[in-house]
Amino acid sequence: MPELRPVTEIRTVACIGAGVIGAGWAAYFLSRGLRVRAWDPAPDAGEKLRRVVDAAWPALTELGLADGADPGAIELLPTVAEAVEGADFVQESAPEDLALKRSLLAELAAATAADVVVASSTSGFPMTDMATDAADPGRLVVGHPFNPPYLIPLVEVVGGEKTEAWVASRAADFYRHIGKSVIEMDRELPGFIANRLQEAIWREALHMVAAGEATPEEIDRSITDGPGLRWPVHGPCLTFHLAGGQGGMAHMLDHFGPSLKAPWTRLEAPELTPELRDDMVAGAEVSAGGRPMAELVAERDRAVIAVRRAVDAARAAGGAGA
Amino acid sequence: MPELRPVTEIRTVACIGAGVIGAGWAAYFLSRGLRVRAWDPAPDAGEKLRRVVDAAWPALTELGLADGADPGAIELLPTVAEAVEGADFVQESAPEDLALKRSLLAELAAATAADVVVASSTSGFPMTDMATDAADPGRLVVGHPFNPPYLIPLVEVVGGEKTEAWVASRAADFYRHIGKSVIEMDRELPGFIANRLQEAIWREALHMVAAGEATPEEIDRSITDGPGLRWPVHGPCLTFHLAGGQGGMAHMLDHFGPSLKAPWTRLEAPELTPELRDDMVAGAEVSAGGRPMAELVAERDRAVIAVRRAVDAARAAGGAGA
Repeated sequence: MPELRPVTEIRTVACIGAGVIGAGWAAYFLSRGLRVRAWDPAPDAGEKLRRVVDAAWPALTELGLADGADPGAIELLPTVAEAVEGADFVQESAPEDLALKRSLLAELAAATAADVVVASSTSGFPMTDMATDAADPGRLVVGHPFNPPYLIPLVEVVGGEKTEAWVASRAADFYRHIGKSVIEMDRELPGFIANRLQEAIWREALHMVAAGEATPEEIDRSITDGPGLRWPVHGPCLTFHLAGGQGGMAHMLDHFGPSLKAPWTRLEAPELTPELRDDMVAGAEVSAGGRPMAELVAERDRAVIAVRRAVDAARAAGGAGA
Repeated sequence: MPELRPVTEIRTVACIGAGVIGAGWAAYFLSRGLRVRAWDPAPDAGEKLRRVVDAAWPALTELGLADGADPGAIELLPTVAEAVEGADFVQESAPEDLALKRSLLAELAAATAADVVVASSTSGFPMTDMATDAADPGRLVVGHPFNPPYLIPLVEVVGGEKTEAWVASRAADFYRHIGKSVIEMDRELPGFIANRLQEAIWREALHMVAAGEATPEEIDRSITDGPGLRWPVHGPCLTFHLAGGQGGMAHMLDHFGPSLKAPWTRLEAPELTPELRDDMVAGAEVSAGGRPMAELVAERDRAVIAVRRAVDAARAAGGAGA
């Protein structure tokens, strides 16, 4: 393990690939007061990058810029080698093409110093599969953001078989330092965590449309006007903790457990073993942060009201401007 | 079909069952200026009902009360027969117990006039299964709300095999009249629409915990800090329309279609036939309401910022008060 400067001394980030995700990352890094060196092979990459940063800047300003944040502190370089020159951290956001990712990550590992983390925005490939061409794969790690990376806090961090332990930790520390919500996974899992959950919804939705059971508009509205209003404040586990009333998750599982066997989705449920039950009950307590049910209910209600108003206002603003 | 007064003349609603859902409905009906006649066999039903209505009232006041809304316009009656006396609409929210629902719905159908709709809040039973004991099942329909019914707008309406067509229409009209977002389904489907989607997430989450792949806290945070921030404004279909960039849903399906075969969740995807592709593309256009991509992106960004702030404020308010 190399000697590492504190993450506060990471001042320059290389953004390799400047499509929707790469440019969104660039805008976010700039808003945190970092300098960005970008590379992208598209002939109009410069214009597109500028457009994304300019479009994101008002939003980022509203959320609060770091001292010294400068939307102009970005440079598009003609080669990968030049882009990573002097970069303290690399964020790769190339298209989801395994062969392309392999050669690009190998090049990035070779071109960067021993203390530079190379993180990939891949939404699905495990690093073990992407790192096969790299002579030195130890500094390659997945740092998976959500679209748009300048607004959605979540970043999932997970290394491959050959990723060194300090690399995943440093990537997580850096992302946390710049205000991200980080989940460090201890194993490679197709789709990581959030995309697995999102994909389960998406596949059930596709099945329903294919079977003529619901239209895409009904599916969308069933979420935006239904459970989607709760999910920004309480995730699926805490939501069901509240559904159990005073008895919380334990009551919910003990009483509604049988509905797991009902054909309420095409996804088969796991066996609700005593161990799984206890893990869910203990986990719900962690999500609840020890707060009593009445406080959680009050929080949910405040949040749902505020979210409904926020969404109504955001929609109305578009209507007024159109 | 009986002669029907306009839904604006529905002035009194009977709430049969006054647990979390029934009492939540009662609070909502009161906020719309309706009178409520409630029944519940629990010895402390009156206190509980009062507590839910009182707890919900500040939220309902903030969202805007109808003229004449009165939190005191509610009466707890000792029998079902007395509760439905003079009621123009019945909302049944008894526990999810099929035998209980069957006998209660039979009693409600027998005790109400020919122009009164009897809607069930069931979260899973098809009306065809619940109506078996009723001598006259024509006026029985599902009107499935989301918790808490006084804040979440969605209501799914679907009849059973013997439900008369005017009954589902009238239930939908009434719910819309009092400000609900209604989805009228044309067939009985286990879990309706939103619960199927929610259940798909929940089952994948349970599998992940059972396999040690993620903790409940990580699952919750992956949603609240990730895709959950987008879902109050854009449902799953519109979200993926935006993920396709300028090409929208068509681009998304044509380019990321292969990831449907990836093991990103335990739910198998349907075959992406040309018909399903075209249905999704056309459906996304409906969800988008013909608005151009830039406007949708701007709407999403405004909404995500506002939702993040709303949730932060709701959480902080709890911390301050605790």
